[in-house]
Amino acid sequence: MRKVAVVGVGETKFSGPQERTSVELFAEAAAEALTESNLKPKDIQALYLGNVLGDFSEGQGSMQAFAAENIGCFNVPANRYEGACASASMAVRDAWMWVASGFYDVVLAGGVERAATMGTPLATRTFAMFSDSRYEFPSGITFPAVFAMLAHLYAAKYGVPLPKLKEQLAAVSVQSYKYGMFNPQAHLRKEVTMEAVLSSFMVSTPLQLHDCCPFSDGAAALVLASEETAKKLTSKPVFVVGAGQASNGPLANQQEYLPRLRARELSAKQAYEMAGLKPEDIDICELHDCFSIASLIAAESLGFFDYGTSGEAWAKGEADIGGKVAINTSGGLKAKGHPIGATGAGQVYEIAKQLREEVEPERQVEGGRIGMTDTLGGDGCTLVNLILQRGW
Amino acid sequence: MRKVAVVGVGETKFSGPQERTSVELFAEAAAEALTESNLKPKDIQALYLGNVLGDFSEGQGSMQAFAAENIGCFNVPANRYEGACASASMAVRDAWMWVASGFYDVVLAGGVERAATMGTPLATRTFAMFSDSRYEFPSGITFPAVFAMLAHLYAAKYGVPLPKLKEQLAAVSVQSYKYGMFNPQAHLRKEVTMEAVLSSFMVSTPLQLHDCCPFSDGAAALVLASEETAKKLTSKPVFVVGAGQASNGPLANQQEYLPRLRARELSAKQAYEMAGLKPEDIDICELHDCFSIASLIAAESLGFFDYGTSGEAWAKGEADIGGKVAINTSGGLKAKGHPIGATGAGQVYEIAKQLREEVEPERQVEGGRIGMTDTLGGDGCTLVNLILQRGW
Repeated sequence: MRKVAVVGVGETKFSGPQERTSVELFAEAAAEALTESNLKPKDIQALYLGNVLGDFSEGQGSMQAFAAENIGCFNVPANRYEGACASASMAVRDAWMWVASGFYDVVLAGGVERAATMGTPLATRTFAMFSDSRYEFPSGITFPAVFAMLAHLYAAKYGVPLPKLKEQLAAVSVQSYKYGMFNPQAHLRKEVTMEAVLSSFMVSTPLQLHDCCPFSDGAAALVLASEETAKKLTSKPVFVVGAGQASNGPLANQQEYLPRLRARELSAKQAYEMAGLKPEDIDICELHDCFSIASLIAAESLGFFDYGTSGEAWAKGEADIGGKVAINTSGGLKAKGHPIGATGAGQVYEIAKQLREEVEPERQVEGGRIGMTDTLGGDGCTLVNLILQRGW
Repeated sequence: MRKVAVVGVGETKFSGPQERTSVELFAEAAAEALTESNLKPKDIQALYLGNVLGDFSEGQGSMQAFAAENIGCFNVPANRYEGACASASMAVRDAWMWVASGFYDVVLAGGVERAATMGTPLATRTFAMFSDSRYEFPSGITFPAVFAMLAHLYAAKYGVPLPKLKEQLAAVSVQSYKYGMFNPQAHLRKEVTMEAVLSSFMVSTPLQLHDCCPFSDGAAALVLASEETAKKLTSKPVFVVGAGQASNGPLANQQEYLPRLRARELSAKQAYEMAGLKPEDIDICELHDCFSIASLIAAESLGFFDYGTSGEAWAKGEADIGGKVAINTSGGLKAKGHPIGATGAGQVYEIAKQLREEVEPERQVEGGRIGMTDTLGGDGCTLVNLILQRGW
């Protein structure tokens, strides 16, 4: 397999409801990625696009084809991927394969969503269809409820008293909001204190408003190229050195494993093994904090902290810049936002910008060489992990 | 790139409304494909699944993950592909790549849909969202109307008087129904005469009922393996020797090219070039006859007949068994049926069975060595072509 590099990235601002179509939103991100890569649309050989709710948010299925034509990538093979929140990461992993194999030299990958435009109540109900429709959805499950139950399981399993866990969760959100403040792409840009988190309204016990990410509109795009081509296009290639993916069925079928998700641990293992790296090698990580409890669970399964200790790690600053690993310096899903089918590509955007040391000083990790993304689809049905390394 | 073979295939009966979930339907097809391949679920390394309307037909998104677990393929990477009617072919092409590259040795690909369960009026309106939502869908376009317009264009461009074209179209349908009669998997199994086609009710002038395929429920699955692995699993490997894919934007943007679809001609060219084969090398072809006019257009763009002459070719039996190329011996979308996200995998199922000489005597092509599939998504947004060759 050939080495594959991210040679250019682009992203719209993640936002609340806005009026551009998904095709138009993606065009903005794609144009930025192409410009960064010193490429023209005609140079792109294929498009790999994540999108989940386009049929519902704007009545547009198969938007990958219209998106390709709209940016001038005429007639290229264009795939749409759906793996719930992990759709764009699934698309990036497949794009990686088509370049790594030697079949294509330069491809475009990314994602787009107008989840905010749908409005939170409708988006929540619609998106609940991405849990199991036989056993989970009919029992009234929505994703806030799933993660609330995982929080209770986490508290019980690791003996963390619920009031203490709630403070730990609040610390996760406070850190995310802190970095979102400095990220011009972020959806929610405001200072939020521990007190504000703990006094925000209850969504699904124990998760309060500020424990939950918003639905966002937004798009992100990446140009991937073979090592040889990358050298001609940029002096700062970011190599995809590890890629893993795994799936889970209904959560009830993995009760003994919860609150950990087996799929994440398998996916991360694949990524680490491919990269020949260990958790302690990761400088920066964008992980899937759809709810603050999800951050604790993810950071442990990725090997950054011992099981049951993530909350303490966050409180001590070990998940912050200057700590063991800088987590969600973009503001994460919580503050940067969560345009579902675009989120995974947005994570790669952040890692690439961080490794190139191009983000705002307040949230720049100095000298970072290796970054990781973690994207969780639905209530764990799809997990994708990517490891990216500075190539200069 | 390594050679990749289809080592086992499975398919449910394509049918009208039925009560099994998509996950259950796919399990039947997958179990058959695994049994044919002498494999256990644990041997499968990844799943590539086409599905278009699951969110609408049964409120199930991300069904690939639940489908994987349900058949015992625990935690494998599982991707959902959406390219409208070409979804499963898109999935098969990606599955091919992951094996051809050397990354996986044995994967499962396929598709599933419950389009019939939705009912034709709702499915027609829902599926219209897979045309362009900016210019096509809002102008009232549904797919029968698109293909009716292409029929008028075809008649005008090639100087075929409309009454004559209607007879030619009827001949296409009569042939498809003839083979559907002998295919136990087919949705519509009845003899339909020229008179019956020409007296059936008008759907969208000039297309009448029997010019249009039904919406079907159904699933199809294929096991793909590397050449080395295939040798251990079967004495009758069917090699994927060519694969092509291309996209189109809104039809209005390619007016000068219509009724031909540029994406199909580019996709077919890719497939022929990869295979080192020409149209005259193809013994059997399953092509995308969503409407009878689509068959004429496809057969010409695939290079089987000169532009404007397909209708005569069908009338003379040149598209039949014993003619230049045996087209849609399964009954095609018209009679075998059209479970949207499964159709492309069903086409590969038919080609594999034909090359292995395992279909009913009335529709068996004797001594066929090379088969081709042609799958068209939406109103041409996605085109995929695969070429398959007997490996013994």
